[in-house]
Amino acid sequence: MDGTRHNLRVDGPRLWATIQETAAFGATPEGGVGRLTLSAEDGTVRDWFRDACEAAGLEVGVDELGTQFALRRGRDMSRPPIACGSHLDTQPTGGRFDGVLGTLAGLEAMRTLNDAGIETDAPVMVVNWTNEEGSRFAPATMASAAHAGLFTADDILSRRDAAGISVGEALDAIGYRGPETVGTRAIGAFVELHIEQGPILDAEGETIGVVDRCQGVAWYDGTVTGFESHAGTTPMPRRRDAQCGLAEVALAAEAIALAHAPTAVATMGEAVIAAPSRNVVPGRIAFTLDLRDPDQGTLDAMDAALRERIAEIAARRNLAITLDKIWSRAPVVFDAGVVAAVEASTRGLSLSHRRMVSGAQHDACNLADRVPTAMIFVPCRDGISHNPAESATQADCTAGADVLLQTLVALANAPQSGSTSVTGGIDANTQSSAEPSS
Amino acid sequence: MDGTRHNLRVDGPRLWATIQETAAFGATPEGGVGRLTLSAEDGTVRDWFRDACEAAGLEVGVDELGTQFALRRGRDMSRPPIACGSHLDTQPTGGRFDGVLGTLAGLEAMRTLNDAGIETDAPVMVVNWTNEEGSRFAPATMASAAHAGLFTADDILSRRDAAGISVGEALDAIGYRGPETVGTRAIGAFVELHIEQGPILDAEGETIGVVDRCQGVAWYDGTVTGFESHAGTTPMPRRRDAQCGLAEVALAAEAIALAHAPTAVATMGEAVIAAPSRNVVPGRIAFTLDLRDPDQGTLDAMDAALRERIAEIAARRNLAITLDKIWSRAPVVFDAGVVAAVEASTRGLSLSHRRMVSGAQHDACNLADRVPTAMIFVPCRDGISHNPAESATQADCTAGADVLLQTLVALANAPQSGSTSVTGGIDANTQSSAEPSS
Repeated sequence: MDGTRHNLRVDGPRLWATIQETAAFGATPEGGVGRLTLSAEDGTVRDWFRDACEAAGLEVGVDELGTQFALRRGRDMSRPPIACGSHLDTQPTGGRFDGVLGTLAGLEAMRTLNDAGIETDAPVMVVNWTNEEGSRFAPATMASAAHAGLFTADDILSRRDAAGISVGEALDAIGYRGPETVGTRAIGAFVELHIEQGPILDAEGETIGVVDRCQGVAWYDGTVTGFESHAGTTPMPRRRDAQCGLAEVALAAEAIALAHAPTAVATMGEAVIAAPSRNVVPGRIAFTLDLRDPDQGTLDAMDAALRERIAEIAARRNLAITLDKIWSRAPVVFDAGVVAAVEASTRGLSLSHRRMVSGAQHDACNLADRVPTAMIFVPCRDGISHNPAESATQADCTAGADVLLQTLVALANAPQSGSTSVTGGIDANTQSSAEPSS
Repeated sequence: MDGTRHNLRVDGPRLWATIQETAAFGATPEGGVGRLTLSAEDGTVRDWFRDACEAAGLEVGVDELGTQFALRRGRDMSRPPIACGSHLDTQPTGGRFDGVLGTLAGLEAMRTLNDAGIETDAPVMVVNWTNEEGSRFAPATMASAAHAGLFTADDILSRRDAAGISVGEALDAIGYRGPETVGTRAIGAFVELHIEQGPILDAEGETIGVVDRCQGVAWYDGTVTGFESHAGTTPMPRRRDAQCGLAEVALAAEAIALAHAPTAVATMGEAVIAAPSRNVVPGRIAFTLDLRDPDQGTLDAMDAALRERIAEIAARRNLAITLDKIWSRAPVVFDAGVVAAVEASTRGLSLSHRRMVSGAQHDACNLADRVPTAMIFVPCRDGISHNPAESATQADCTAGADVLLQTLVALANAPQSGSTSVTGGIDANTQSSAEPSS
């Protein structure tokens, strides 16, 4: 990385203007964005993105699931492109930054390279993945998952929304069923810039999260079954109270997460009493649990501890408690070389930073199964996301885009070898990024 | 009480036949009864009851809230009648015994007196109170409450069901808006036979509950407010998890009830998470609590302990927790003389028995505010009530009706004085019934 490139900076106001401009496509009265994947508004923002990329001299292709790939040619077109990007779809009541920042910062990086007249060795590319959010079609991050080989294109194309419209039909409706076969687009490395969607950077006053892994997650459906009885006539010792049993399960899950501090988290997000009545002891409750940790061994230990506690609660309270793991995703360790490149770029820009784990799932977590990948986080106010109140500062968005730009250039200009590792100012300790950092 | 009367027994099979006969009015496919108050089916069973009473030579009157009073004349018509009875309305998916047993056992007692040619000193009477259940019109036990002066007739007549029909309109529709002014019907004492609606007698193998009080109840609405956040990105120490806070409130209420064993009970019957999602930390939950105890001092102590615990939970977890008492009913101590008469009759019949507290509210609990009152419980299988599976044996129904009959005769033939106390085989210990017994 030479001095010229260390001084290279994006045009922060130009990036900010594109974020605000595209927020008009699906703008909500509360100041957020409602731009469900493959909706008319999504078609509009895709057209805008294609036109902007083509105006920047990029070659835009679309695959059969609608994912847009905008390529900037490099000196050595035999090398696979160094890619960045994120998504332009939002939650029904989403904000202006989730996904949008990473995609438009990629465009801004390309514009900056153009303005500086820089040609990279490997080509660079910005990607807009279809349906990251999963609000209209399940699963979330479906296009990047299909790219990584986790689903077939036919499977994804046949998924239907609540109105019965398939992904294929929705792609046709906005003209985005592209000609490229899913998974054939070459990618040499992938870097995704995203707002943190959590409170850590904002609370600790740091600008950049160098994300070296994505935690694993296990989703559970459960039930607590006791016996409905009269709130007035049933003595406490004779009760089989599903609500008190559920309460113990909720607190057990919390205690198990705390026993694996500081990384593990546990959430009982749903709990529904069957036929609730204020003067009836609850007899049956359905609940969900969400357990996450960056380490699979910890997730397995939490699963075992939870089942042991549940068996004890059920036996002591004469309840039947079920717990079914309905979905899980193993932890992902990002590529040490790409992580090091992000960290080196952050240091080169003298930005405050910390290693982080991605608490949420992102397209990058899927890509990591196939290509060297890492992520960059910037703060969002109070950690609020998936909400019209989602907010990030122009300065932080600019800083994140600068790190992204520097990382792309570093990776694209790195000597080609079997490894994606880059050199330059990275000490031995930093290279230990494959080990847990938080 | 002379020897003849000690040998007096109801006709068990005849009582059982009337219970099964009236179960046809509103019979449900599951074998239960759905006979909402003032419905067409309620009109049918009222007509049946009036005809049966008149056939037994009783004089049937109806008050302006539809309550039916069936009087059997006594030797001394200057004395107010000794009354029994209960209700013939049911829950939407109710059983065959709740309310029905006490009303039809009263009819059976009158028939038995007729068959034996017995004339009591005071008149005796069987009452069918309107709307005990409260499923269609609130409040429950509205007619007996109005009789006791807790509501005006106009207030009750103006109450509307979910379809907008008023009590007055519903009474007119089935022809049961009677001429008697509410509260003017003289009653010298009141005895209500009822299934326990709880598990104690069935579990302990006892036939008769001598009910000497009705516990007090306090109903609360509450909320737990934390902050909705991402289940993956929010570290445990930064969470304001409403579900974990709610869990602690549920277990605190349970612990407070257990601290006042064996009488106190606490129930969290409803708890609804706002906008639940499996990957969102719950931010707001609405809940209800139901606390009961036979002693007002204990209820007050439970209220204070609960508020103290909630304040501690809210402070420690950085939550806002509200708790509003929306309704309460003070404990009722039944009349020592009437309770003693029930107990003496039970002993005279050599039936296994125990003193009990009524855990549920009944018409008798209202009547006790105005006239000497007590209740008689018989077992129901597994304590199940308000359910098509509600079940009581013919032998237990017969035993309860025998106790009711003996008690009515004893009270109606007791020497008239300022007191309702009766004599005969009741020892000093039994007279202490005004003290808590459970």
